[in-house]
Amino acid sequence: MSDTRDRIVLAHGGGGEMTRRLLAERIIPRLANDLLSPLADSAVLAPLKGSICFTTDAFVVQPLEFPGGDIGRLAVCGTVNDLAVMGAVPKVLSLALVIEEGLLLSTLDRIIDSIAATAREANVVIGTGDTKVVERRGGDGLTITTAGIGELREGARIDARRISAGDVLIVNGGIAEHGLAVMSAREGLAFDTDLCSDVAPLTGLLNAIFETGADVRFVRDATRGGVAGLLADLVDDTGLAIEIREEAVPLSPVAHHTAEVLGLDPLTVANEGKCVVVVPEREAERVLVACKAHPLGRQAAIIGRLVESDAPCVELVTGAGGRRVVQRPYGEDLPRIC
Amino acid sequence: MSDTRDRIVLAHGGGGEMTRRLLAERIIPRLANDLLSPLADSAVLAPLKGSICFTTDAFVVQPLEFPGGDIGRLAVCGTVNDLAVMGAVPKVLSLALVIEEGLLLSTLDRIIDSIAATAREANVVIGTGDTKVVERRGGDGLTITTAGIGELREGARIDARRISAGDVLIVNGGIAEHGLAVMSAREGLAFDTDLCSDVAPLTGLLNAIFETGADVRFVRDATRGGVAGLLADLVDDTGLAIEIREEAVPLSPVAHHTAEVLGLDPLTVANEGKCVVVVPEREAERVLVACKAHPLGRQAAIIGRLVESDAPCVELVTGAGGRRVVQRPYGEDLPRIC
Repeated sequence: MSDTRDRIVLAHGGGGEMTRRLLAERIIPRLANDLLSPLADSAVLAPLKGSICFTTDAFVVQPLEFPGGDIGRLAVCGTVNDLAVMGAVPKVLSLALVIEEGLLLSTLDRIIDSIAATAREANVVIGTGDTKVVERRGGDGLTITTAGIGELREGARIDARRISAGDVLIVNGGIAEHGLAVMSAREGLAFDTDLCSDVAPLTGLLNAIFETGADVRFVRDATRGGVAGLLADLVDDTGLAIEIREEAVPLSPVAHHTAEVLGLDPLTVANEGKCVVVVPEREAERVLVACKAHPLGRQAAIIGRLVESDAPCVELVTGAGGRRVVQRPYGEDLPRIC
Repeated sequence: MSDTRDRIVLAHGGGGEMTRRLLAERIIPRLANDLLSPLADSAVLAPLKGSICFTTDAFVVQPLEFPGGDIGRLAVCGTVNDLAVMGAVPKVLSLALVIEEGLLLSTLDRIIDSIAATAREANVVIGTGDTKVVERRGGDGLTITTAGIGELREGARIDARRISAGDVLIVNGGIAEHGLAVMSAREGLAFDTDLCSDVAPLTGLLNAIFETGADVRFVRDATRGGVAGLLADLVDDTGLAIEIREEAVPLSPVAHHTAEVLGLDPLTVANEGKCVVVVPEREAERVLVACKAHPLGRQAAIIGRLVESDAPCVELVTGAGGRRVVQRPYGEDLPRIC
């Protein structure tokens, strides 16, 4: 009996007294803010002067907690970052939980605490939410869907169609750490690794970049599909080719080693705190300096550039001067990574 | 092999080429609109003059298709209605799909078509989305989370704290039909029933009500927890008691019969196209007339009123003058109903 009382049961999702208590006793107090407290059907936000950015992400990561983060931190950062890379200032998130029967209430509490802490770090509030409970099945425990509203920064013109040949690509630090950390946790890899997910809100870093006044043409966070997927999209959207210098791509020794053990190309592995910024070459140094001055950009680097081509693709130039085409990952190297 | 090609596989959710194709070939064209097409990380909306309403809902209904609707129609209506009952005009929705491996692509196509049709009916666009795929497990197939943005109507002041003793409660039609239709479909009930879910966008009906100029104090759609859950919340929020006349509560004969067979109190069963409107008594007739003139309000009725009480609760007054206390449903009479 005490065991049942420690866990989520179906009745927590029924919309009755147990739902009310779960929200009132365990969830709302942890997320408390002026928007959420009235528990109305919608949050009401004061009008925003600028254009509104709106985005959503569903998170199905396994395990729910992993080195460097958890599904709650991931859900806040993923949506905050999708807004920030558009040139918006994230304002308010929604939080929809689908909880599996049997989830430990203590696990839920930790994840909600993590959501609250990450929201504070990203300077957003959880304005509205929903909670459903489903029967016990594969042991997923919890999926989270966040949506977010941001206010578009005046003058921000993030648009792949503004990219020209000659523009350069900057990444803000070591790649592949999120995907590799989650895979290592899942596989219980035997070798000792202190690899942590890079999951972090990029709001502050992007603030610093936009405040340089540089003509930022495009930013995107390199999540599912990794840097390779992002670059393949850029080729599709611009009709230009991309050249990447392999030795310029930041990759920590532990990430390099872990990718080799798992047989993965780090370029195709998901990140949750890394973005690719495209700026005109003349502005690259200024943006790089701004990145390096921010805690999330210390390892920032110019990794390559866009070039004219009759048959546009992404090419990796090796230290020895060799070239290989980087493909968009076809399917699912890393299931359930975000 | 042909069988596999008819179904969702894990690689559809990997963020690579198969994800791109699923979106570009099956999902985006069905939902096509100016916001969604650029496939950026966020949709960009022109500034709204009024305050912004923001809401979210997760949908885990089983079965995915049921008499009168499907999970897609439900997801659009649920979020549209949460905005509309706040006095907002719904503008744009986000759509996050978590698809289970093995879902028939033809089922997905039908549900996306239903989302598109319902969005048109509710005069909203699907502005942004996300798609994830999870391993085959309990046969859920699909969960959908929508979030929505609406613009608050000038002068709308929907707030339970404005409710006074003497105010009356109006419901726009027969209750319990959504929950009973889903349960009947799930149980494969042997008796012949033409009971259909009432799932519908309430935007038009609420427009008509607000346009009367009546001082609408409170509106809420009676979803999970049914009318009983909604009224229990109202008692908590106002400190007033509620008296409902049993004979005044609209209930179709087929819903009445089905509830008896299933042993359920119709007051506790979920609706997806019914709302409770609270107005001052002097305005009730005007609002009732506006309801009855709308296709979704033909059976509208005044079901009761708020009264002062030392021990506030919800009381049902029977035709014979008997009284019984209506409790908030405790847990889960009807799991997976929305």
